[in-house]
Amino acid sequence: MRVRTVEGEGVDRVNAISDGVFAIVLTLLVLQFEVPDVPAADLWPALRAMRPLVVSYLLTFSVVGLYWVVHHNLFDRVVRHDRVLLYLNLLFLLTVSFLPFPTELVGVYGTRLAWTLYAVNFAVIGLLMTCIWAYAARRAFLAAEVGERTARLVTLRSLISPAVFLVSIAVSLVNLDAAYLTPLLIVPLQALWVRRYGRPSRP
Amino acid sequence: MRVRTVEGEGVDRVNAISDGVFAIVLTLLVLQFEVPDVPAADLWPALRAMRPLVVSYLLTFSVVGLYWVVHHNLFDRVVRHDRVLLYLNLLFLLTVSFLPFPTELVGVYGTRLAWTLYAVNFAVIGLLMTCIWAYAARRAFLAAEVGERTARLVTLRSLISPAVFLVSIAVSLVNLDAAYLTPLLIVPLQALWVRRYGRPSRP
Amino acid sequence: MRVRTVEGEGVDRVNAISDGVFAIVLTLLVLQFEVPDVPAADLWPALRAMRPLVVSYLLTFSVVGLYWVVHHNLFDRVVRHDRVLLYLNLLFLLTVSFLPFPTELVGVYGTRLAWTLYAVNFAVIGLLMTCIWAYAARRAFLAAEVGERTARLVTLRSLISPAVFLVSIAVSLVNLDAAYLTPLLIVPLQALWVRRYGRPSRP
Amino acid sequence: MRVRTVEGEGVDRVNAISDGVFAIVLTLLVLQFEVPDVPAADLWPALRAMRPLVVSYLLTFSVVGLYWVVHHNLFDRVVRHDRVLLYLNLLFLLTVSFLPFPTELVGVYGTRLAWTLYAVNFAVIGLLMTCIWAYAARRAFLAAEVGERTARLVTLRSLISPAVFLVSIAVSLVNLDAAYLTPLLIVPLQALWVRRYGRPSRP
Repeated sequence: MRVRTVEGEGVDRVNAISDGVFAIVLTLLVLQFEVPDVPAADLWPALRAMRPLVVSYLLTFSVVGLYWVVHHNLFDRVVRHDRVLLYLNLLFLLTVSFLPFPTELVGVYGTRLAWTLYAVNFAVIGLLMTCIWAYAARRAFLAAEVGERTARLVTLRSLISPAVFLVSIAVSLVNLDAAYLTPLLIVPLQALWVRRYGRPSRP
Repeated sequence: MRVRTVEGEGVDRVNAISDGVFAIVLTLLVLQFEVPDVPAADLWPALRAMRPLVVSYLLTFSVVGLYWVVHHNLFDRVVRHDRVLLYLNLLFLLTVSFLPFPTELVGVYGTRLAWTLYAVNFAVIGLLMTCIWAYAARRAFLAAEVGERTARLVTLRSLISPAVFLVSIAVSLVNLDAAYLTPLLIVPLQALWVRRYGRPSRP
Repeated sequence: MRVRTVEGEGVDRVNAISDGVFAIVLTLLVLQFEVPDVPAADLWPALRAMRPLVVSYLLTFSVVGLYWVVHHNLFDRVVRHDRVLLYLNLLFLLTVSFLPFPTELVGVYGTRLAWTLYAVNFAVIGLLMTCIWAYAARRAFLAAEVGERTARLVTLRSLISPAVFLVSIAVSLVNLDAAYLTPLLIVPLQALWVRRYGRPSRP
Repeated sequence: MRVRTVEGEGVDRVNAISDGVFAIVLTLLVLQFEVPDVPAADLWPALRAMRPLVVSYLLTFSVVGLYWVVHHNLFDRVVRHDRVLLYLNLLFLLTVSFLPFPTELVGVYGTRLAWTLYAVNFAVIGLLMTCIWAYAARRAFLAAEVGERTARLVTLRSLISPAVFLVSIAVSLVNLDAAYLTPLLIVPLQALWVRRYGRPSRP
């Protein structure tokens, strides 16, 4: 008689630990704002000088939030798991939990090097998400309602975000300010995908 | 064939990530208390000097707790979600997770500027909560038991807290100490609303 | 027509936010251990000098863990809630989330004052737990299987821990080292209670 | 009439607090990376100098992730609990939540002493996991599908990781760099166990 390995029904605890890591990363980001140590009269200029930190904070929060929505969306349709899926998800969480460091690097230094590390981090997160989805589809861990074509289309969509971040690295070689704005491309590209392939869930 | 977008049943993971962010914010607040570095004999005066921090700590914990109760109360009646609701909730969590920073500003500086940032932060949180509720009502994501009039009355109640915080900014222009006490108005105003419109749930 | 107020079935989200706060407090405690900044050869003595921190860390972790077990135990039998119960629980969480500060005070200063703050904090936590239980019993929010006598006996047990901490303050006036050991009394007193009033759940 | 003590059905809140602690430990690890305070031109060398921290970060994240998978796997089959199981799990969480400290010690000092503390911490975590499983098996808290032989085989597997860490301490006496690599042995040893005793869950 052999011992059943970790493969099993449901992804409740996968969701629990992922929501935990997402919640903590979203909340830890604020810790990079240190209360300035200046006379009360100089507080406003000191706060204004924090603008680069605010930009990287808002950008990171938005993209992490976006990835949470995607994670929520994908695992909503995953009904079984095995050991490999657990490890892929942990690898995904490793890259998510690392984000506060490059975020602060961008906020403090704002150089091309900082941006590259930041964009690579986000691109890897997105690619791991794609891997998770593709693996779950290949192992037939998806809900029955998800057809093969749907699975492929969702894979396609999950490549939008890492592609945009890799493009932003190329952009940063030409113009660093433009690189900061590149991630905004995710919004129209996602909307385009939804308009072309999405359908309202209640027809 | 088109792909179902993120609209779906239930708000389990919305609650999970929100509870996570609330729990972390409530707990991170204590980190602003740094153990003083004084001779043991001077510990008591050093602790007494922390009183402004204690006040802003207690105030923030109370209001965040209040918002958690409201979030709990609202999402108890939300039975469906779509992508927009997820993003509205993330925007709400963004403003909640930012709170430790203005809280510490108020505790350390205690100026009118610090209070304004703090009150604006809380007002925005409250207004986003109102948006979430109004959006869920308009898209018919609420439980069937919630009638149209109820939805409007709850919208009204959720405006109490942001209104009080905006008033407190005006108050701070006249008297900063009075501004600190203004949020206490939320308690009688909420009670008034409950007495006028609330009914016991078990008749 | 009047609006149903927050009273409702279940305590899922009460448990969720409480488990979140407990988990974070248990984990934040380790942050008080700062990696010493000494030559590698002096690392061992530097670590040995951290012994008071280790003692207060272990003590706090144990008592917080004990309170989590009690919270788990109590809310296992609470089947309904109202607004007051939510606020009592938030007040309870406020005192739990404050713990890392007096814990570090005891570890760093180790004076009678530090111990008093620490013991008062734990006593208040315990008394709030008693309030929550007594309130839930009075409002008939408990599972039907819990009789009136059981409710009274559980109230009695929940007073053990705050009583011991208040005694430890008196002890600290005589001998501070003895005060550190006083909380160990919780173990035999709880065991005594269980031997006298507890019954095995599977007869 | 006697009062039912904490023994009961299910391990939902045990999982909740454990997932919380795991999520926080996994995310706190990144806090040891401090943004360097150097001129922008020296950022790259400053980041390269962080390599030992990266190594200990990746190693700790991997092993904590591994223990989460094991915890997930074990508690998936635990269907009842008593007070002792709750305390054993809390003791387990104590040792997990302590990890960021020895991890940073290894990253900053990288001496044999630091490695020994680190390896002992991981070995104790693993042994406590074994205790939890053995206790649950002895008290018949496991799902009916888990036979006696399976329970013994899983106990055997859960000893692999602590054994490897204890061996790594011996290795560190001879060669510290080799000790860093020793935990990699867990991967082939686990795979060996799975090949010998595991069976696919869907035959």
